[in-house]
Amino acid sequence: MKSYRKELWVVVPEMQGVKDLTEEVRECVEASRVKEGLCLVNAMNVTSSIFINSDDWDIHKEFFKWLEDIAPHDPEKKADTKDVEEHFADVHFKRTVLGRDVTIAITKGELDLGTWEQILYFEFDGKRRKHVLVKIIGE
Amino acid sequence: MKSYRKELWVVVPEMQGVKDLTEEVRECVEASRVKEGLCLVNAMNVTSSIFINSDDWDIHKEFFKWLEDIAPHDPEKKADTKDVEEHFADVHFKRTVLGRDVTIAITKGELDLGTWEQILYFEFDGKRRKHVLVKIIGE
Amino acid sequence: MKSYRKELWVVVPEMQGVKDLTEEVRECVEASRVKEGLCLVNAMNVTSSIFINSDDWDIHKEFFKWLEDIAPHDPEKKADTKDVEEHFADVHFKRTVLGRDVTIAITKGELDLGTWEQILYFEFDGKRRKHVLVKIIGE
Repeated sequence: MKSYRKELWVVVPEMQGVKDLTEEVRECVEASRVKEGLCLVNAMNVTSSIFINSDDWDIHKEFFKWLEDIAPHDPEKKADTKDVEEHFADVHFKRTVLGRDVTIAITKGELDLGTWEQILYFEFDGKRRKHVLVKIIGE
Repeated sequence: MKSYRKELWVVVPEMQGVKDLTEEVRECVEASRVKEGLCLVNAMNVTSSIFINSDDWDIHKEFFKWLEDIAPHDPEKKADTKDVEEHFADVHFKRTVLGRDVTIAITKGELDLGTWEQILYFEFDGKRRKHVLVKIIGE
Repeated sequence: MKSYRKELWVVVPEMQGVKDLTEEVRECVEASRVKEGLCLVNAMNVTSSIFINSDDWDIHKEFFKWLEDIAPHDPEKKADTKDVEEHFADVHFKRTVLGRDVTIAITKGELDLGTWEQILYFEFDGKRRKHVLVKIIGE
């Protein structure tokens, strides 16, 4: 069994934003030399998401608007006070709706994604360096 | 290490609907001959979900009603315009709440599911052929 | 390839509550002797969640309040009538928003978690014994 690990660093200059990580994850799969296996991609911070959708900025903007509808920002609700940097509760809710991680099959040495599937990083507490874990196991 | 891959094809005749894939995934596990491992099941389209719940049509109907409450269909919001077939934004939101994939343990050659756990495919943009990936690794 | 399986038993004395399972999962990783691999943790009941967030009771309380906002309890909606114990539909919705399972990388024999990441069990139908599956594969 082979295994591979890499931390990707992401900086989103605004509080909210998106980065398509598909190419960087593809490079990890190549570097791992795993031909058949599984690839886990997860946010290592609890205020950002990794999820899969098409890479279309129009739909991404709609996602941010919709998340604001169902988990509105409330400046009264400071949570996570144990953390060095305090977050607002809505940030946790938004990240949870989209999710922390995705698992993707590796087949014949490549990410086994559907036609429109892209690996997206959604940031809800940006303006600083965050990290994403890529872990690959297989053969 | 063994690995196994199969694409399941699903056609839901209405725009929204459910298919229980548990039996088909069970057959994949048997065909894979993997005794101890992990089984990933994921929608390959970004407009349908794989998630785990009990196989009860009463609760499925409630799911569709609730998703309409929190992510209502809005004919003004055509998104995903890069795609060959245009989708509406709410379809993406609904699929994201339920999720794209599940990972299930394989123990002693069988899906290691709780008593009421069933692998469900939820369709939000049906009337056409969609695909679901089953990837198994283990020994 | 090594594999390891353990069922954790959880009893939350109230209908809703939280248990941090990070330490118990850490003990499973140690017992598995897997140095590089993947660890799946999933609820085996369809009325509780496993998800990752910081271990801060202030934010947990906000989570329960927010879930009540987006998936309010409605005593009219008895669902899951096939089940031995009947559940209300909102319980299924709440559990689905937070999710059924997480997959965590194992690196150098340890859970490869971000600084604030903790493995949380959220209960939505407590007062009885529930079970959680830990499955580890790797080398």
